[in-house]
Amino acid sequence: MNESEVVQGLHAGLAVFRKRPDDILRVAYSRAVRREVTSLAKWAASRRIPCQEASEGELDRIAQSKHHEGLLVATRPRRWLPAADLAERLLRDRGTCLALDRVRNPYNVGAILRSAAFFGVDACLLGAPAPHPGLAPVAVRVAEGGAEHVGLARTTDLADTLSRLRARGVRVVGADGHSPTNVAGYAFQRPTVLVLGNEVEGLGERIRAQCDAVVSIRGSGAVESLNVAVAAGVLIGEMTRGRPSSGS
Amino acid sequence: MNESEVVQGLHAGLAVFRKRPDDILRVAYSRAVRREVTSLAKWAASRRIPCQEASEGELDRIAQSKHHEGLLVATRPRRWLPAADLAERLLRDRGTCLALDRVRNPYNVGAILRSAAFFGVDACLLGAPAPHPGLAPVAVRVAEGGAEHVGLARTTDLADTLSRLRARGVRVVGADGHSPTNVAGYAFQRPTVLVLGNEVEGLGERIRAQCDAVVSIRGSGAVESLNVAVAAGVLIGEMTRGRPSSGS
Repeated sequence: MNESEVVQGLHAGLAVFRKRPDDILRVAYSRAVRREVTSLAKWAASRRIPCQEASEGELDRIAQSKHHEGLLVATRPRRWLPAADLAERLLRDRGTCLALDRVRNPYNVGAILRSAAFFGVDACLLGAPAPHPGLAPVAVRVAEGGAEHVGLARTTDLADTLSRLRARGVRVVGADGHSPTNVAGYAFQRPTVLVLGNEVEGLGERIRAQCDAVVSIRGSGAVESLNVAVAAGVLIGEMTRGRPSSGS
Repeated sequence: MNESEVVQGLHAGLAVFRKRPDDILRVAYSRAVRREVTSLAKWAASRRIPCQEASEGELDRIAQSKHHEGLLVATRPRRWLPAADLAERLLRDRGTCLALDRVRNPYNVGAILRSAAFFGVDACLLGAPAPHPGLAPVAVRVAEGGAEHVGLARTTDLADTLSRLRARGVRVVGADGHSPTNVAGYAFQRPTVLVLGNEVEGLGERIRAQCDAVVSIRGSGAVESLNVAVAAGVLIGEMTRGRPSSGS
């Protein structure tokens, strides 16, 4: 399973099968999930794509991890949305997008993608210094299929990419716990990009300069902050509030 | 540090110092957090409460864990709110309360307590089969101080406790992903208890029978569900929406 991306996890792997089956190169699964992967295995057999039941030990070895949930799907490399296409798509659909400004922990990235997909966010723009790390296998697994449902774009200069989106008419809203603007009741316009900052440093200065507004979640002051993934979920819920659900 | 509860974690330990200093029996901290615990150490010295800098290895040994964040605070056993006092308090303050129906994972319980404290929820009722496990040290740490800010009650018969609260005029609202009632826009009355179910089984049948309403978070259908802690955060945010912040 070299020279390809190996998607780990039951929901993550089945989402690849649903959303981009033509990318699948090879499948391995454990006996424990035989029933859940029946359709995938039948389809693979009909296409003569290698698909085999393997021991937990063998799956651990391929995944280099014990957290594969019994399913590994080797795929062609993930296709990233070019920034220009991202703007088109957001304008056409009056869509919503997340941008992550150096969010580092892959568990956080994964949980955020899961919430984004749950609430029907159209795309996620991953900002990181060069060389861009892409999307970690752990994030793909924790997203539970969210990485296949949300359009993914990446940039090594998020401030510049945001400024280009803004020039096209996309509204840029940052999140910062110290902002006096309460996200509850904030009227998100569309298309919008909601920017979430690094776990420790928050939004960078150049990113902040690109924001049309900066919002926060109003708290009681009893504890300083919400967990990063929880805060992202609340913010995404607010951004997509009142939006008709798309049914996938 | 036996015959007492050992609170682990920097924010969790400092919250004990702020909220119930008279319960503190002994303190140990690492050199790395010396600055953060200055006030605590001075106060302990003035009270002749044992408080010492210790090596990471020694802290690991006492905590039986490496995740103590450099601070251990041994306290008198946590005081639980009797169910009758919980009803009084909710009625008096027209308050909000969470009830957890067999939520098992202590990381989830901790993240939920953190969100509850953040949003100014008054109390949390932990329902579990006898013998009640109380609150795990991991949950206290992950709550980042939330366990000291939210009144804690426990019961081994949550359905019965909810029926008593209802008889006093407390509204009971359950959460279930399959409910057609969208929590966004649901008008929470006060006092209210919001009931969250077990990670796998959801709300028990006897609990559901005590609910005046059951609400869900509306999703796009792209992924099946939100992470449990994220869902709890969104629901708690909705329950406390528009409520004036109490400033701790």
